[in-house]
Amino acid sequence: MHNSAPWIVSRPAIKTLDCTIRDGGLINNHKFTDEFVRAAYNACIAAGVDYMEMGYKGSAKQFSRKDYGAMRFCEEEDLIRIIGKHDTEATGLKLVAMADAGKSEWQKFVPKKDSALSMIRVAFYAHQLTEALEMIQHVHDLGYETSANLMSVSVLSNAEIDTVLEAVAQSQAGTMVIVDSFGHLYREQIDQLYTRFAAALKGTNKEIGIHAHNNLQLAFSNTIDAIIHGANRVDATMGGLGRGAGNCPMEILLSFLRNPKYKLLPVIEMLQHHIEPLRETLDWGPSIPYIITGSMNRHPKVAMDFLVSPDKKNLIGFYEKNVTLE
Amino acid sequence: MHNSAPWIVSRPAIKTLDCTIRDGGLINNHKFTDEFVRAAYNACIAAGVDYMEMGYKGSAKQFSRKDYGAMRFCEEEDLIRIIGKHDTEATGLKLVAMADAGKSEWQKFVPKKDSALSMIRVAFYAHQLTEALEMIQHVHDLGYETSANLMSVSVLSNAEIDTVLEAVAQSQAGTMVIVDSFGHLYREQIDQLYTRFAAALKGTNKEIGIHAHNNLQLAFSNTIDAIIHGANRVDATMGGLGRGAGNCPMEILLSFLRNPKYKLLPVIEMLQHHIEPLRETLDWGPSIPYIITGSMNRHPKVAMDFLVSPDKKNLIGFYEKNVTLE
Repeated sequence: MHNSAPWIVSRPAIKTLDCTIRDGGLINNHKFTDEFVRAAYNACIAAGVDYMEMGYKGSAKQFSRKDYGAMRFCEEEDLIRIIGKHDTEATGLKLVAMADAGKSEWQKFVPKKDSALSMIRVAFYAHQLTEALEMIQHVHDLGYETSANLMSVSVLSNAEIDTVLEAVAQSQAGTMVIVDSFGHLYREQIDQLYTRFAAALKGTNKEIGIHAHNNLQLAFSNTIDAIIHGANRVDATMGGLGRGAGNCPMEILLSFLRNPKYKLLPVIEMLQHHIEPLRETLDWGPSIPYIITGSMNRHPKVAMDFLVSPDKKNLIGFYEKNVTLE
Repeated sequence: MHNSAPWIVSRPAIKTLDCTIRDGGLINNHKFTDEFVRAAYNACIAAGVDYMEMGYKGSAKQFSRKDYGAMRFCEEEDLIRIIGKHDTEATGLKLVAMADAGKSEWQKFVPKKDSALSMIRVAFYAHQLTEALEMIQHVHDLGYETSANLMSVSVLSNAEIDTVLEAVAQSQAGTMVIVDSFGHLYREQIDQLYTRFAAALKGTNKEIGIHAHNNLQLAFSNTIDAIIHGANRVDATMGGLGRGAGNCPMEILLSFLRNPKYKLLPVIEMLQHHIEPLRETLDWGPSIPYIITGSMNRHPKVAMDFLVSPDKKNLIGFYEKNVTLE
């Protein structure tokens, strides 16, 4: 046990990634107004956030423009309409899109030199590893930074995780992210996963990231846990906006990082003017049904459905129905 | 880094303490209905909770019965009226009251044999150490279990903490609690504090407890942190009901402890029928103003006042006003 005070010192190697629009879009099919997305973009720049994930590069064959907002697709013309011509150097902000294995026409992506985007994060389930590796190689060849985001890690065996890690270690991905999709993990599990990731990626110069969900009110805590071990890529969303119980709140993360380049006020402004008003029509953040799915290591979908049902105050019924599944 | 799975194993030495009524009473002057207190009591018994803190032993000279509810006083006749004659052995539940140094007529407490209470927790600030030690000795002599709860530990120097620990180590207190009144601490600070407490109390057979607040959404996490180190006395409240950002939620804690003696359903019932309806008139739990006071290591009072003011949606104004204090 050291007795120094690491909490008053910043670690410049840590880069923050705002995924408010990307993860938040999972609760409204990305039907944000252009004004909302623009406000988030301006807040990220003013707050000194390093990366902003604008949304998904979703396949137009699988998702219709009628049912989904522009940030489900992140076409270049969508980005230009909303934020104008993005200048990475002048703003200090790198733009990111997520591409899901199985849900993206990644073969058609334009080269980085023709895009507002600097990075593509490849999201995949373990059984989609082969496609994910092809995607990583392809977007790397197009000139993008890449990240390997293995989803739902809390339901995988160590053997499965190790197989993914071995393959990613040899890939061009610059970052590999610990993704706790179900919000199930806690400190000792994060510790073990980080150690496992770090051992497999040793010597590759890859960064390790953390993407936490807040089912057990541990999203910020798990993010800190990963940072303490050495994770330098950290995801957060303003107001915790995100699927189900939501994400690590950017406003808590920036308060914690002690890096003078980060400014909290622009995030508070975004919260007051844009995020908090969303609560009139959208529901997210920690609540009792998410505790139940999180502690049982289940997908939050049943809780999300419950919370928009007429029966949403019947917590006892939800508990009894879902625990019976055990 | 061990590679076992401690999270599926329970540790029977851990005892849970429900302080829903005691800490929750700080937001409504303990004006709970008898029915509400009775429901919490029955929920604790049915859930297998080990200790229930009924409220404060507040001085009737300092707190009037007109302005404060019965659980600010926890007189024997109040307890009998609400819960009947309590049987510790039959219910498996020990009843507790908190006595604040400077706010309690502890010299007049009845002996344990004449009380429904099994334990008195002595709450004190560092500068009240002398009275706290007298209180601990006195209530021990009356036959009660005792606990030393040093408040606001996050604003004390190590020299001050060490002086308190040395004195408590020689006292009759059975437990010493790490109390993060401002919800400021995170993992590395809890780790260091636990280590400091454990070193000072070594060989005394005293237990270490944890009482966390949720300003930075770390109440459950910090509780786990202390448990991982060895804390066997853990405070929580149903629905996180408590001052300001609230406490470690009992429903998350019980889900985590994996001890078959604990039952979650009675807590869910209490939440649905009694706690959630309180939200119509009372405000508690994590929110942006508490992030600001928590991260700045300040008392939550300014945030509590703000959240009941007409200006409560003006987060920007709150931030600017309170950060200017730096």
